[in-house]
This record gives sequence, C-alpha cells and structure tokens, in this order.
Amino acid sequence: MELIDGNQIAQDIIDELKREVASLPGRKPCIALVRVGEDPASVSYVKKKEKACADIGITSRLIFPPVTITQDELFAVVDGLNADPDVDGILVQSPLPKHLNEVAVFRRIAAHKDVDGFHTLNLGKLAQEDDTGFVACTPAGIMELLRRSRVELAGRHVVVLGRSLIVGKPAALLALQRRPWANATVTVCHSQTAHLPALTRQADILIAAIGKAEFVTADMVKPGAVIIDVGVNRVPDASRKSGYRLTGDVHFPTVAPLASKITPVPGGVGPMTVAMLMQNTVKACKQNRNAR
Amino acid sequence: MELIDGNQIAQDIIDELKREVASLPGRKPCIALVRVGEDPASVSYVKKKEKACADIGITSRLIFPPVTITQDELFAVVDGLNADPDVDGILVQSPLPKHLNEVAVFRRIAAHKDVDGFHTLNLGKLAQEDDTGFVACTPAGIMELLRRSRVELAGRHVVVLGRSLIVGKPAALLALQRRPWANATVTVCHSQTAHLPALTRQADILIAAIGKAEFVTADMVKPGAVIIDVGVNRVPDASRKSGYRLTGDVHFPTVAPLASKITPVPGGVGPMTVAMLMQNTVKACKQNRNAR
Repeated sequence: MELIDGNQIAQDIIDELKREVASLPGRKPCIALVRVGEDPASVSYVKKKEKACADIGITSRLIFPPVTITQDELFAVVDGLNADPDVDGILVQSPLPKHLNEVAVFRRIAAHKDVDGFHTLNLGKLAQEDDTGFVACTPAGIMELLRRSRVELAGRHVVVLGRSLIVGKPAALLALQRRPWANATVTVCHSQTAHLPALTRQADILIAAIGKAEFVTADMVKPGAVIIDVGVNRVPDASRKSGYRLTGDVHFPTVAPLASKITPVPGGVGPMTVAMLMQNTVKACKQNRNAR
Repeated sequence: MELIDGNQIAQDIIDELKREVASLPGRKPCIALVRVGEDPASVSYVKKKEKACADIGITSRLIFPPVTITQDELFAVVDGLNADPDVDGILVQSPLPKHLNEVAVFRRIAAHKDVDGFHTLNLGKLAQEDDTGFVACTPAGIMELLRRSRVELAGRHVVVLGRSLIVGKPAALLALQRRPWANATVTVCHSQTAHLPALTRQADILIAAIGKAEFVTADMVKPGAVIIDVGVNRVPDASRKSGYRLTGDVHFPTVAPLASKITPVPGGVGPMTVAMLMQNTVKACKQNRNAR
C-alpha cells in the first residue's frame, strides 16, 4: 500500500505555479477573496488561500464585508469585481450567512472569473470537454492526484460514491473525458443505490464523496484498488483536546491494507483544492489577457 | 417481452401539446426551422418537424438558405432570429455543409431559444438539475419513454453505452437526477471500456447509443432488463429495394426474448425526438412570455 501524499503533490503544483507566474510578463495574476463575516472556519480557509497566493506571487485582494451585508450590497461587490480588469478570479468563501442566497451570489460571478468552477457555463464546458472553462477545485484536485500518482484510468472502472454538484458529478465527467489520464468507465452511486457493496467492489479506482464518516469498509473494496477519500467528517473523540477528530468517508484502518494506493484524511484531497484554485487563477489571468 | 411503442407515445405527447397550445393565450408558439441546402435526409427531417408543428398548432417559420451561404451570413440569420421576439425556438438542422462550423453555429443560438438543448448553458443546467434549461431531444425522449412505460429507475442500475454529448452524457445526467422517475445508479461505458459484457449484464435498464449495428448481443443482457435502443444504422440488405435496412445498436432477434421491455428500431426512440422538440418549443414560448 502506498499513501498518496496530497500535501507534497499540492506543494509541487504550487512550486510549478510560482515558476510560471515569475515568467509571466506584465502584472501578476490577481484573485479577489471575498469573506462575509468572521466564521472561524471561513477565516482559516481564506488565510490558507491568501498564503498560497503569497507563496506563488499571485496578488490577493481581500474583501471582508460585515456579516450584516445585504444581498444587493454583496451583488454590487461582485459586479464591481466582474467589471474590474485588474481582477482575474473571484472567490466568495462558502458558507455565506443564512440571510444571503449563496447560489444566486455564485451565479453573479462572471463565468470567465469563476475560478471556483461553480458557474453553469463552466459546468457545461466540463461536459463538453471545452478546456476554456474552469473545473471545480476538488474534482480537479482528485484528477491531478491520480495523474501525478501515475494511476492510469483508461478503460478502468472508476466508481464515484456521491452525486454532488461540487464533487461527484464533475469528477464523473472528468474521468469520462476523451483525453489522456481519463477515458475511464464510470459508475456514479449514491444514497438511493441498491446493492452498493457489490458495485464499489468493482472499482479499480473508488472516489468516496458521500459525506458519511468511515462509510466505506473493507468489504466494499476490491483488493488492489486505488482509494480517493474526499470526506472530511468530524467524529467525537474525548481523547482529543478539541473533542473531535477528522475522518474521511473511508474506514482507513481496515481499507488501507487492501488498497494499492490511498489518500489519507487529512493530507490527501484537502490540500489539492487550494492548489487547484491557484491553478485556475493563473489560467484565468492568461485567458483574460489573451482576450483583451 | 413488451414492445415500447415510440410512435404511440410520441403521438400521445403531440396530442397533449395540441391541447396545451390551444389553451395558451395570445400568439401561438413559434419555431424557426433553418435548413441549409437540399440534403435529402435533412429535407425529410425538417418536413417531419414542420408536420408536427402543424398538428400541434405551433407556427413554423421555414428558412432554407442555399448551400453556398457563408458562416457569417448564417450567423446573421441566427442573430436575427435571436433578436426576434416572435420566435421562441430556433432549430438549425444538422448536418451542415462541411464549409460551415456546426459547433460555432449551434453556440450562436441564444440559450433561451435553444430548443435542441445543445447550448453549453443548457448542458450546465442539466447537470445542475435546473429545470429552466432545455434538454437535448433524444435523451429527453428516452426518459419520457421510460416514464410513460412505467419503468421505475430509482435505485436501479442504468448502464449507458456511449458517451456522446448528444445522447450518452445527458442521458446519464438525467437518470442520475434527484427527482421522480430518476435517482438511478448510472454507469457510462464506451469504446475504451474493459470487460464490457460483464458491465452491461448488470443493467436493469440498458441504453445503447454506441452507433454500431447490432452491437448488443444476448450474452450482454440480463434476463428481464429494459432495453432502449438509440442506434439508427444502415445495414446492406440486397432483399430490399433501397439496398439497405435500418437496425439499431441491439441485435433485436436474440435480445428481445430476454428483455422485459424493449424499443424497436425504427419506431422506438426515433419518433420521440420530434415530440421532445415540440415540447421544448412550447416550454420556450411559455418561459419567454413570462420573462417579458
């Protein structure tokens, strides 16, 4: 069994982006990081993104409206960033306070600055295999982990557990594409699936993104499979200071010995999302520059 | 074994649309049918669509530019129809002559008039389960055939053979949606798939859209499966006047006895595409009216 080291792979990508950005003529790529309020998890996520920007040489513009901002005021913030030629990418940190319509805010972001890859047009481009779009960071990170771990997908069976718009569906569409490091046969399973273990046991590559702690057990896995664990679940743990520990959607202690390769939680898919956000921002900068 | 009668189901839909259109206030729905040149298959397809419009009470505006039309001239035709408030839907008959960029022409059609469902935004809406979009007519027709034949998909295994943008991928996304008559577990197989018969034999519902005559044989099918045959292939046949016969992607004589339900070719999926185009046109009319 080989651990897929997401921290190392993410760092490699950040190093590559740093070299690429250093060689870009003109102004540096710029991402606007919009965080509403002071939710502790959001504060921590945005700090990580800010740090990655600093490491690479991407300009980050920090916009921290108060938690009392109205929908229309937040729309106005997004509209201003959409119109600003010095801003390449816009990230609005999720979750937004409950009085704001998150989907409507995400849709307000111009597709060509949508480095989170949530825009309808970018999802359509993913289905159409149109490379000018942006792919959501988590599924893009999964594919990059597999590619850089030399896991060949062509003709092999990828089983995706979960059909969310942010992970399951785009991961399935990516694995299905007609291109190197894709061309997989793809099955999408979910909460309504009958005979789930019989299906997951067929997976050469199993992507678990169902949001249930330690849901995937040894009996659900084929020996030699590659396991990508997208879950981040808090499980009560009295032995920890915090009172909880993080686990994935996979029961690591029993599944890992069966797997040929597996991602840990934390340190697997997680670090890749920030690296992919940075990659999308550099791509946006190059595309927006060419369009002008 | 029960034959799924696409002609009858399509006729039922056309009758329903006729009643709906009769009850619509104001002007009737209007579709522009654009056919470039005189390709015999295109002439026949457009005639069928024109006839369905007449049956239902949809106004069809026929636009038949000569085969010599340039890309820019065709763009101008589409732009004019996009801007025309009396036109609800625009259909550009495929295939276009080779000197024209078909994808670029399809993309030129405004998303809210894209009754063929090929626009990037409409594909994204399909993935997002956003009902304001238009779904491509063949996959929409497949789902309607299943629904009206009382084939329950929830939790069952749909195997789609083929990953085209016009059939395979949208059919997979539809079967996967969280809604009544969907919620299936979905596998997409294609030319690169290993161990194909072992996968197709797992299908409770098998959708064959691979474009190879009589490719699906009895050994690839589970007894009791529902078989949807999307293929339309010409096979040489000296006993016919035309010199050929039409067959699907399924070897009907050996597969039909195994199936619980099966679509014939012709007379299965085929007639549904025109019915779905009409349904999309009526939907476009209602949406465009509400938007004004």
